[in-house]
Order: sequence, then structure tokens, then C-alpha cells
Amino acid sequence: MSTIYNFSAGPAVLPKSVLEQARDEMVDWHGTGMSIMEMSHRGKDFTAIAHQAEADLRELLAIPENYKVLFLQGGATAQFAMVPMNLLRGKAGADYIDTGIWSDKAIKEARRYAQVNVAASSADHAYTYAPGQTAWQLDSNAAYVHYTPNETIGGVEFHWTPEVGNVPLVADMSSNVLSKPIDVSRFGVIYAGAQKNIGPAGLTIAIVREDLMGEAMPRTPTLYDYKVQADNGSMYNTPPTYAIYIAGLVFQLLKREGGLAAMEQRNIAKAKLLYDYLDASDFYHNPVAPENRSRMNVPFTLSNPALDAAFLQGAQQQGLLQLKGHALVGGMRASIYNAMPLEGVQALVNYMQDFVKKQG
Amino acid sequence: MSTIYNFSAGPAVLPKSVLEQARDEMVDWHGTGMSIMEMSHRGKDFTAIAHQAEADLRELLAIPENYKVLFLQGGATAQFAMVPMNLLRGKAGADYIDTGIWSDKAIKEARRYAQVNVAASSADHAYTYAPGQTAWQLDSNAAYVHYTPNETIGGVEFHWTPEVGNVPLVADMSSNVLSKPIDVSRFGVIYAGAQKNIGPAGLTIAIVREDLMGEAMPRTPTLYDYKVQADNGSMYNTPPTYAIYIAGLVFQLLKREGGLAAMEQRNIAKAKLLYDYLDASDFYHNPVAPENRSRMNVPFTLSNPALDAAFLQGAQQQGLLQLKGHALVGGMRASIYNAMPLEGVQALVNYMQDFVKKQG
Repeated sequence: MSTIYNFSAGPAVLPKSVLEQARDEMVDWHGTGMSIMEMSHRGKDFTAIAHQAEADLRELLAIPENYKVLFLQGGATAQFAMVPMNLLRGKAGADYIDTGIWSDKAIKEARRYAQVNVAASSADHAYTYAPGQTAWQLDSNAAYVHYTPNETIGGVEFHWTPEVGNVPLVADMSSNVLSKPIDVSRFGVIYAGAQKNIGPAGLTIAIVREDLMGEAMPRTPTLYDYKVQADNGSMYNTPPTYAIYIAGLVFQLLKREGGLAAMEQRNIAKAKLLYDYLDASDFYHNPVAPENRSRMNVPFTLSNPALDAAFLQGAQQQGLLQLKGHALVGGMRASIYNAMPLEGVQALVNYMQDFVKKQG
Repeated sequence: MSTIYNFSAGPAVLPKSVLEQARDEMVDWHGTGMSIMEMSHRGKDFTAIAHQAEADLRELLAIPENYKVLFLQGGATAQFAMVPMNLLRGKAGADYIDTGIWSDKAIKEARRYAQVNVAASSADHAYTYAPGQTAWQLDSNAAYVHYTPNETIGGVEFHWTPEVGNVPLVADMSSNVLSKPIDVSRFGVIYAGAQKNIGPAGLTIAIVREDLMGEAMPRTPTLYDYKVQADNGSMYNTPPTYAIYIAGLVFQLLKREGGLAAMEQRNIAKAKLLYDYLDASDFYHNPVAPENRSRMNVPFTLSNPALDAAFLQGAQQQGLLQLKGHALVGGMRASIYNAMPLEGVQALVNYMQDFVKKQG
């Protein structure tokens, strides 16, 4: 097949070398005669894989020792409930920053358990920016502050970490985890569905500061209790073993490629290439405030929406796949996660230029 | 490598042809240039895979139209909470049948939400039998009756379906689903973690009668609400796409091999071979009442436990893997799910015979 580039927002492109290794090891992992999928999660082979995956993730993100790394299920949506169930700790409410469709989902789920104070919102401008910290009206009694550092649908990213004092900061990093170095010690909880920058759908990573665990509210399902998961090394019950194995391969690749500092440089270059072209063009438009543009998800519209279908069809023919924007915002979206090479973004820009010329 | 046979209780052996197909399609599924893992769950390729998997499962189990098939996460342990959260429907309590370690886990989780009436228990004989229905003390006001048709650890299986009148019958079929035909219409809810007879860990199947949905208790996490999952075709959020794909390959294989009636005949023959040998031997012992012996999980002990380590080591050298019994019961356990061929059971019996001879 010719080269294809997959711009899906998630499940998303994975590194080709990881998929090739998974293919080669599928039927017989390291001479055991078994697939990873066939191994007991409590056997020595799989537990070694899981421990290595955790160690590599800890190294990549420089996770301090007073944080637990949990391999969970249920995606960010499960975390939308788990965060209030675990972090309210007797308090009545929490602060949420509303910057898009995923923030809003987190808020709606939290309202089932807590009084939610929307401390800042960019709904007034169709979620096209991230409110600066001076605009945040935080409640000093809040159990925690939740925000969405990267809005996958709106393409809005925080390029700074909020300062919230002693209140635990909770971040849904599903779509920008591992895209750059972060200071984990600034956060109470970081969580991320795997299916964008980590691995296959069905695995969720949670990084939880130890002192925030152990006070889950009554009737929290056992699997939703961070403390239970931590005390059992994420094996209270059978974890999604194959997804953990693939994630582990991705972590090893990221380490070989220079870690998150190297990823950040690549991601800056990729995003710059695409945004520079968008800004120079009258034909395409990205609505997001320049200082809040996502390096991971780049939504854009055509000046003439009647051409959307032709644009997508031509892209598909060029091997530029899954560019259709989210149904709620329309237009196009190019998701350019870690595993998208610069060449893929260049191929997209080339196609976009050609498409304009053809309309000439 | 020489032939190996994997007797793991779960994650467990998968059909080799399924693993080979997954290997061949890993990097480029059907000429798309993408792995299944890289595809949007809402794209036409993956939705076709998910729909086919559901259709094939419906055909295999002859699932009536008034049942929803849900592809979920969290394993049976998540269902231990979801069942009371969804099925109490304002009632105070439910009946549970206690036949082993997995029943007991279901009971403990249910007690967090409901008054549990243990209507029958085999704890009096170390969980070595399934109490006959005449011994069940059911509560006619129970919201539902929960039982565990196959106890993976104890090796106790119900070879009959309980009759509980109009009270919905709920079954944890994690370790014997798809091993034989069943009459789904006798059940209110059937659930099963995938990692034994279906596919990879991280996928859970729930088959739920429609009229039982829609009355989840307050504060049920959105993902734990059967109705929400059903109304969204199991895609309220991103499902475990790769695990669904593998499960779909298994379903297609089962259909080609003659469906569940054929599976049952194979499983009867495999179990008979092993139990007949155990019964004829003074050296090995299975503690379960003959009429309740599991066709899927066969625990056995050596008359001299000091030989356990030598038995396991010798088995490993013969390619007979993951035979160590569960820590809670000790000894050995041979799990002989659908994907274990008769040749594997014969190889085990041959080894067991040789081992006895060596001890002289």
C-alpha cells in the first residue's frame, strides 16, 4: 500500500514500529508459545510487562514517588465520576473550568455527585479560547479544581499550568498526555484515556497523589475507588492486559526517541507548519485564539462548506484519512498526536494547497 | 516451537487461527492502511465490525429481540455493582446463591447497595457442590436472583437453569459462556468477562432484558447505567475496540465450527476424558460432587502436596502451561475452555499418568 496518514482524533494513529512488533509477537511472545492475550495477568511474564510499563511511564513523566500510577478501564468518562466520588472527601463542591465539550461532559457528570462551581468558561465565545487565570473565580473551599488541558473537539489547549494553591488540581489530559514534559507535582490527579497518545482504547491511566486516596464516598463502586486500585496494583480484577502491553511498547519507543522534551519539539514543529499555513490562507480558517491553539487537534473549516465533501474525498484518495471534524463543530479536524510524523502534516498542507488551486 | 497447551483460567487460550488472523491484519486491516486499533470507533469500518460481532453473538446464543447486547468494560467485578444499581428498581433486596469465591465477591459488592438474602450456600462443604433448587430459600419480593453458573476457582458448574418464576434471574457466565447452548429467555441479565471464552481481557458482555433497564439508582455512574449503554449502542464513550474485534473473530470461528451445540459436544468429551482419569486414579483428586463438576475448570490435588512443584515443573517442560491452582484452593487447575483442543487434554492426562509412574 502507499503511505497513508491517519488524522483520527481517537482511537488514533499508533507508531508503525509498535504495531509491527505487536504483529511479530502476536502468536508467540518471546518464545513462550503464547500470545500476551493468553497469559494470566498474575503470571510472571505479564506482571513484568505491567511493572515495566509503569516504570517507563514514571520515567517519561518524572512522576514523584508520592503518586500512584493506575491502569484502569472506562476512559475519561469513568473518571468524570471517579474524580468527585474520590476527591470530594466530605466537601460539598468543586471548581470546574469550562472550555469545551469535554469539560462540559465532566461538569455534567460531576453535578450528579457535587455542587459544581463553574469558575471560568469560554462558552461565551463558542469555546474558542482558554480563560486566563485572572478570570477564574475559584472557591477556596472547593474540594478540587478540574480542567481540561486540551479540548480534543474544540482544539483549545492550555500552554500553562494553573496555580490553585493548596486545592488539588485535576486534569483530563486524554488528548495531550505525553506530548510534552509536565510538572506532575503541580497536580492532584491526572487522567487520560489511552486511545490518543498512549495505546489502544480500553485502557485509562490515572496518576493520583497518595494523600487524596482513601475517602471515597459511600456506594462508590469498588472498581471506582482509587485506593482499592492502588492497593491492588491495578489488579483488583483482571486489567486490560493487551492494551497495557501496547502502551508499554509506546512508552519504550518514546524513551528511545528522546522522551517528552523531544516529543514537544516535534509537536511544536508539526503544529507550526499547519497553523502557519492556515493563517496564511483565506480559504481555510481555524477559530481558536492563537495563544490557546492545540498542538494535538487542529480543527479548521473551508470558506465554502459546500466543498467539504470534495475536500474529504480528495484527501482520502491521497491517503489522508479520518479528517472529518466532530459532528458538533463540523468542518475538518487534523489530530496530530505524537505518532503523526512531520511528513504527514506536510502531506496534508500540500494537499490543502493543491485543493485551493483546483478551486482556483 | 513445539506444541504447547495453555490451561490458564483467564486470560486464557485463544484459538490459534484467530491469533494468526489478528497478526496478519495488525498493521493493515483489509487494505485500509490502518490497524483496527487506529480506527475511530464511529467510522464505518469499526462500526461494521461491532455490528457484525453483535449479530454473530446473537445468532450463537439465539438471543431474543427483547434483549440488548452490551459491550462494556470492567469485567464481572463491574457487573457486581451494576447489577444491584440497575436491577433493584426501588426494591430493598435481592437473592444470591453462594457457590464459591466468585459468588461471594458478587455478594460482598451487592451488600453495598442492597439487602442481600443468601438463599442457598455450599460454603458448608467448602464450595464443592451446587445446592439443588429445593434447598433455595427465595424471597418472593427479591428484585432479582443472582447466581454463578460456573465457579472458575472451585470448578463447580450448574448443569441446569434455576426456575425462579417472575423474578429476574441474573447469571455471571464469565467462565462458561459460549460453552453450550442456553435459553436466554430464562434470564434477566447474563454477563461475562471476555477473557475466558470470548476474547481479550478488558471487554465485558452483558445481555440485558429491555424491560429491566431505565431505573438505575441515583448516583449510578453514567457508564454503569445499562439504559445509557443500550441507548448509545455501547458507544456512549469509546469502547475497547480491539477487544471487540478479537471477540468478533472468535464468534465467527464458533459459527464455522458448528455453533454452541458443537462446542458442547467437544467440551463434554474433553471434561469426560479428564474426570474419568481423575476418578480412576488414587494419586489425583477432584473434590467436586460429580453432578456439579465444571466442564471448563477442573481443579485437582496430588495425594502428596510435596510433589506439587515437581508436577508443575515437569508439566512446563512438556509444554503444559499455567496449571497451578488458585492461591485460595491450592493444588492444580486445568481450565479447558472452548479453545482448548481435545489433544491438549489428552496430553495432560498422558503427562499425569507418566508422572504417577515416575513416582513409582
